[in-house]
Amino acid sequence: MRFTVRAATKDDCKEISRMIKELAVYEKMSDQVKISHEELERDGFCQNPFFECLVAEVPEEQKSTEGFTVVGYALYFYTYSTWKGRAVYLEDLYVMPEFRGNGIGTGLLCKVAEVGKKKQCVRLQLSVLDWNTPTRDFYAAKGGQDLTVTEGWHAIRFDGQSLDSLVHEAPTD
Amino acid sequence: MRFTVRAATKDDCKEISRMIKELAVYEKMSDQVKISHEELERDGFCQNPFFECLVAEVPEEQKSTEGFTVVGYALYFYTYSTWKGRAVYLEDLYVMPEFRGNGIGTGLLCKVAEVGKKKQCVRLQLSVLDWNTPTRDFYAAKGGQDLTVTEGWHAIRFDGQSLDSLVHEAPTD
Repeated sequence: MRFTVRAATKDDCKEISRMIKELAVYEKMSDQVKISHEELERDGFCQNPFFECLVAEVPEEQKSTEGFTVVGYALYFYTYSTWKGRAVYLEDLYVMPEFRGNGIGTGLLCKVAEVGKKKQCVRLQLSVLDWNTPTRDFYAAKGGQDLTVTEGWHAIRFDGQSLDSLVHEAPTD
Repeated sequence: MRFTVRAATKDDCKEISRMIKELAVYEKMSDQVKISHEELERDGFCQNPFFECLVAEVPEEQKSTEGFTVVGYALYFYTYSTWKGRAVYLEDLYVMPEFRGNGIGTGLLCKVAEVGKKKQCVRLQLSVLDWNTPTRDFYAAKGGQDLTVTEGWHAIRFDGQSLDSLVHEAPTD
């Protein structure tokens, strides 16, 4: 199957938003998506964007049963290690179910690695859920190291009330 | 103990670099630090900075035994959730051992939360090592949720040869 991977433009945000929701439905978490395409436009296409995005596109004659030609996306941003320097973090990697098995996911992943390398990033990181064996195997087969298993890293989050509590405790200027 | 928390300037990078190394020595990983103060200056104080940093400062009369007044730092950057939007990620939080127990760590953490909130971030995230019980307890006491335990998130990393392999597999434009 022919496909191309290119940097997303502001005009792609509706398609990206559609696929974010598809991914959440697949994960049975669709009620969790609070972000609209307007917010993607605002946050990804401003002066200091919060993220960058690649999309995978197929030719018109290979469009999906519902008529879509943008069939996958990889959303990422830059992070920083105080030991090693610049890094790129892959937040979402998604390919529509009917287009899987054609190397599109690998194409998106490798392109993010290439974009990161051009920006002098020395790492590509991402997170996976422990029960998601196919995805864990996919990354492991490509050489990704599970830092939670090998080094014991745990992810901690503050949000909602716990985030507000921190803010209220902040020292005054 | 009196202390202030303020945004780091380019001139603070030597002090931040010193503390990054102190933290690595404490973790018995000092050989892992490849980043110099010049790289911190370049990456944190450019047009689209890879990170931001806060420093904690004590008055001259309370300086450290070695004569330092910058005694802690919090280095963070912005990330993005495709479900919830803007987030802030705390990469490093450090207070020099002789200044611990004075609320400086909490002050830095809460200030990062405040800075994030002002940028409309809905989450503050960070990573801890599973054997580091004091640090895990510190964040848990403040309401931080361990996503690795509650949801099963694992951190995956590509670097060195595994990153290069991805880059070599990237589709051509």
